[in-house]
Amino acid sequence: MSDSWATLGVDLHLEARGSTTPGPHRGLRKGVTDALREAVRTGRLPPGTRLPSSRVLAADLGIARNTVADAYADLVAEGWLTARQGSGTRVAERTVARPGGAPRSPRKPSRPAYDLRPGTPDLSAFPRTAWLKAARRALAAAPYDVLDYGDPRGRPELRSALADYLVRARGVRADPERIVVCGGFVHGLRLLGQVLRARGAQTVAVESYGLDAHWSLLRGAGLGVVPLPFDARGTDPSGLGEEGAVLLTPAHQFPMGVPLHRDRRATVVDWARRTGGLVLEDDYDGEFRYDRQPFGALQGLDPDRVVYLGTASKSLAPGLRLAWMVLPPDLVHEVTRAKGHVDLCGALDQLTLAEFITSGAYDRHVRASRLRYRRRRDTLIEGLAAHAPDVTVTGIAAGLHAVLRLPPGTEKPVVQSATWQHLALHGLSTYRHESARAERLDALVVGYGTPPGHAWGATLGALYRVLP
Amino acid sequence: MSDSWATLGVDLHLEARGSTTPGPHRGLRKGVTDALREAVRTGRLPPGTRLPSSRVLAADLGIARNTVADAYADLVAEGWLTARQGSGTRVAERTVARPGGAPRSPRKPSRPAYDLRPGTPDLSAFPRTAWLKAARRALAAAPYDVLDYGDPRGRPELRSALADYLVRARGVRADPERIVVCGGFVHGLRLLGQVLRARGAQTVAVESYGLDAHWSLLRGAGLGVVPLPFDARGTDPSGLGEEGAVLLTPAHQFPMGVPLHRDRRATVVDWARRTGGLVLEDDYDGEFRYDRQPFGALQGLDPDRVVYLGTASKSLAPGLRLAWMVLPPDLVHEVTRAKGHVDLCGALDQLTLAEFITSGAYDRHVRASRLRYRRRRDTLIEGLAAHAPDVTVTGIAAGLHAVLRLPPGTEKPVVQSATWQHLALHGLSTYRHESARAERLDALVVGYGTPPGHAWGATLGALYRVLP
Repeated sequence: MSDSWATLGVDLHLEARGSTTPGPHRGLRKGVTDALREAVRTGRLPPGTRLPSSRVLAADLGIARNTVADAYADLVAEGWLTARQGSGTRVAERTVARPGGAPRSPRKPSRPAYDLRPGTPDLSAFPRTAWLKAARRALAAAPYDVLDYGDPRGRPELRSALADYLVRARGVRADPERIVVCGGFVHGLRLLGQVLRARGAQTVAVESYGLDAHWSLLRGAGLGVVPLPFDARGTDPSGLGEEGAVLLTPAHQFPMGVPLHRDRRATVVDWARRTGGLVLEDDYDGEFRYDRQPFGALQGLDPDRVVYLGTASKSLAPGLRLAWMVLPPDLVHEVTRAKGHVDLCGALDQLTLAEFITSGAYDRHVRASRLRYRRRRDTLIEGLAAHAPDVTVTGIAAGLHAVLRLPPGTEKPVVQSATWQHLALHGLSTYRHESARAERLDALVVGYGTPPGHAWGATLGALYRVLP
Repeated sequence: MSDSWATLGVDLHLEARGSTTPGPHRGLRKGVTDALREAVRTGRLPPGTRLPSSRVLAADLGIARNTVADAYADLVAEGWLTARQGSGTRVAERTVARPGGAPRSPRKPSRPAYDLRPGTPDLSAFPRTAWLKAARRALAAAPYDVLDYGDPRGRPELRSALADYLVRARGVRADPERIVVCGGFVHGLRLLGQVLRARGAQTVAVESYGLDAHWSLLRGAGLGVVPLPFDARGTDPSGLGEEGAVLLTPAHQFPMGVPLHRDRRATVVDWARRTGGLVLEDDYDGEFRYDRQPFGALQGLDPDRVVYLGTASKSLAPGLRLAWMVLPPDLVHEVTRAKGHVDLCGALDQLTLAEFITSGAYDRHVRASRLRYRRRRDTLIEGLAAHAPDVTVTGIAAGLHAVLRLPPGTEKPVVQSATWQHLALHGLSTYRHESARAERLDALVVGYGTPPGHAWGATLGALYRVLP
């Protein structure tokens, strides 16, 4: 039932702001009512559509159930919806006249009905209440000048909170003075690319599998990008030579899911010490490890040669645009200068995250998320065993995604078939560097963290339908 | 009395986070108490110092008076402070043993005691309560996917709210599809510099007076920067030729304070139409006009040739890092591509600002600020007439700063003398382009918006002491 909501891809808030009447009394109830009315009026919720229960929709939107129930009641009274005992709330069958004008601007294509692309956590689980509480506390306690232009490295409150957290949770050797807050991992990587180029670096080694967006950023800084070989022990750094840096995901290779073997961790740090190269450690999901103790950050082995990059995009939400770098001392000044006063992050979000971390709310959220994702992972593994015995699951000891190995030659047709089912799904080839020296494999990269809670079951169903 | 607080530059929050005990119950009262204890312990509040009243400090910090009173009471009980009827609360005279370790990291030099540098509004008047209310409403109403990676142009809710506001309040011809949200004016200017350079522009004309940081950004994009002449009717655009663009502050020249004469507004738009050049309109303080109706934005004359740039840095606070561009249609794609997914602003602040605007809170805040700054301006004018009759005030019909013309040869000694008085003050020469073809004037650029409310009177006193 609740899937109809996701299926129809109704974007409540977008529509709600279509109401252009300003005024302090425009309430949530009106916003929800307007959005639903608009969705019915424009046909995006066709006659007969069954709406999710007020409980499910309220949970989805993070608002009180009564607000949704009131909005439903208003629309039943207006004739847009019908409510019947036992059959729930539906869009009225009779054709309704279309009052008012057209929507303001053409809508972009809505989200796919089901989404298993990796890279995003379950955004419906964002801890809204705790976040707002932290915002309130942070803003109340802050002296007025936190709202001024600030230190390009980021708010000292946040750098201090991060230093404590990273030492404790990720084994990073951190100090607030060496932390630079940035607007997402990609922002940090762009700054590092600029600095490396300015230092005279020509190329950066990367992994055979990864994100083309990252490689493009480095190329955009004028750097060549060379993939390293990959095998069951992870990325093989033994061939590293004159490269200025190597970009790695040591705790949980993205997307293959293996940790970097301990011998190779040593090899890469030795290379950096020997040549003066830098290791860029992308610790994108280091918080999420299920079957054993998390691997400590590679940076702990040599904080003078490894740049640690962490992010709130997986642990909280990408929309926060908050990430952090722990830099070798000699790099702090260069990165700060490259950042200048142009790329600062909003002070209030920084203060809020600092309070969120120091109050313990971040730890609680990560713990709760770890449990939830672990359950999802276990459900996925069991479901695959039952529905798709030819599929092998790997890379599942950590993180928010799994690699599903497929019979040879089937990746492309499976992804195509998913598109027809309105299931967004990425094949492993999406993440393979064009000149990777690694065996070509047919596989899917399944982001089981991505679907919102209410859509999880139906999304899995869609996945099983497209697997061989 | 309350000035002692500003004078001592105690940074409450910085110290408060020095308490490393995490836990949800660490309250405001504890934060304030810890910060004060630390300030006494480290000697930053020397024995005998009189503290501001709990009412003044509470207002300064935006917290309840009781919280401050409780913190004072705790510290009196611990022996760090003394309270006497009629003499207020003071740091205890007897030497107190210094328990515990040293502060974590060396402190940066604190703010100057008095600050009249232009460019920052009164941050103690930031509408914390209304902002938090808007944040709560915005987050409650938002569907979960607002927390995803978003449109590089910015959240549609904010672009829509800005379009409505800019049409209404600034005469801008705006449409949400042509608005790009950016992280402050400088971020927008950097993107525009990149795009202009990519289009083949060689130089950008600027004003004789302005901010070196802006000129540097354009130079950093590979563009030459050429100043235009300046006289009583503002910047003279008649000599514009093959430049790719001209950067102007038409509503209120920064820092000289004159509006661009209407003939010159026409001239600059004609130039842009004739040559295909772009006008970059920096409307940094367009909201604040006192003696007559605000000048509408130049952009209204030709939205296809003028880029409008607005910001929340003066109307709310620079720490938000939120600004916006209204772009000619053919520029939207190029700017969006230059921005990419690397420079996104935090979704929550964007949603909050959208709610803040549509609820009417932004208008209320601007109105209240306008009244407050107008009163400050009038006080300044009266005070100068009484204390510094040789000084002429100009550029005061709008904005948050005034230009104080000084007798020839006195600018440098006045600024030097201000430094000795712990008064941060900028001479006009700070803002003069090195190759400006404009008469050299001795003057001060006085940012009367900058001091926090409680320090305003004392700051004026410090100014009068250094004037000839």
